[in-house]
Amino acid sequence: MRLSLACLAKPILHGYFRSSCSWRVRIAFALKGVEYDQLPVNLIKDGGQQLTEEYKALNPMQQVPAVEIDGITLSQSLAVIQYIDETRPGPRLLPADPKARAQVRMISDLIASGIQPLQNLYVIQKMGAEKMQWSQHFIDRGFQALEPILEQTAGKYCVGDEISMADICLVPQVYNAERFKMDMGKYPTIKRLNEALLEIEAFQVSHPSRQPDTPDDLRA
Amino acid sequence: MRLSLACLAKPILHGYFRSSCSWRVRIAFALKGVEYDQLPVNLIKDGGQQLTEEYKALNPMQQVPAVEIDGITLSQSLAVIQYIDETRPGPRLLPADPKARAQVRMISDLIASGIQPLQNLYVIQKMGAEKMQWSQHFIDRGFQALEPILEQTAGKYCVGDEISMADICLVPQVYNAERFKMDMGKYPTIKRLNEALLEIEAFQVSHPSRQPDTPDDLRA
Repeated sequence: MRLSLACLAKPILHGYFRSSCSWRVRIAFALKGVEYDQLPVNLIKDGGQQLTEEYKALNPMQQVPAVEIDGITLSQSLAVIQYIDETRPGPRLLPADPKARAQVRMISDLIASGIQPLQNLYVIQKMGAEKMQWSQHFIDRGFQALEPILEQTAGKYCVGDEISMADICLVPQVYNAERFKMDMGKYPTIKRLNEALLEIEAFQVSHPSRQPDTPDDLRA
Repeated sequence: MRLSLACLAKPILHGYFRSSCSWRVRIAFALKGVEYDQLPVNLIKDGGQQLTEEYKALNPMQQVPAVEIDGITLSQSLAVIQYIDETRPGPRLLPADPKARAQVRMISDLIASGIQPLQNLYVIQKMGAEKMQWSQHFIDRGFQALEPILEQTAGKYCVGDEISMADICLVPQVYNAERFKMDMGKYPTIKRLNEALLEIEAFQVSHPSRQPDTPDDLRA
């Protein structure tokens, strides 16, 4: 009985407006047309609300996002996105063809394992005054690798002409690059894809400037 | 014609005996019983053979592994493993149940995005004398999160009683922890699972001590 009630409940996203990994999950929910509730976790306030014992029980990594869905709690955004894709109707977030799926996962992981972890809040807090230079270095290194891959795989979007998890990863990473004041002109394919994706409603409604916890001065 | 020849050819793994991401792919091939060729890329010799223009064409991130398979070249180990799983017969590397699949991916990504990138060669080369302390910090942080998750999900292996991609990620990460001289006694569930997995032939034949490029003094 408890399980079936949980399955009927709306998913709850514990996230932060500006977290790129939270944004990925918001895009996936929006593309699938899934309604969900947001419970903001402020990564800065009170020394970081992700560090409380209460939040640690949801995600022992003490990072956002954590998602309560169908009676289980998941962390790691790509695991969440693929769970949403496999259990909800609506447009596929991974293509049916195994080779295209592999390319989507390769691009997603290049960002999610090869770039984002090296410039996330927890790591750059350890870098002190060097944090801008450190972040720029790792984003540049990743984008220099991503650009020739996307030249091969991209159509209208990252892999062919259908939106996929790769696009869901790309846009928040470009947003981070821009926060770190990087010149996107060096990566014309990434820039083109990002601009095309930002035209799409699911990427707009999920944008950091339009969330319940967006501060007024950053609100669009 | 060229495509069908490529499809008949054995996959080629460009890897390094001690790279944990290369080991993940070797375990997947072994579990599936897929024959493959190895072309070693020595990450230390000649300043790092992954930095050559020739290798960069295979993997623009200039990291191992890169895998030539079925006429395409893939990088990012979890993308490779899931491609192998989806295209080869043999035991599943991800469970059929969507919730269990999500847990497998969550654990895999906790390691592949949350731990490994912060202690890989390229990053610790930037840390100089602090590299041991830096690596221990991030592995400890990840294992402290992983331990309570595995207490919930594990049976005989990481998620229930079937070997999965989560196990494929766990064992090489424990190997790295031991290289960084960490005390595994702090993580009893991780330790138990690692020991159980190392009993399995696929984890043994793929071990860093038994590869074509293993130096004689490290050979088992």
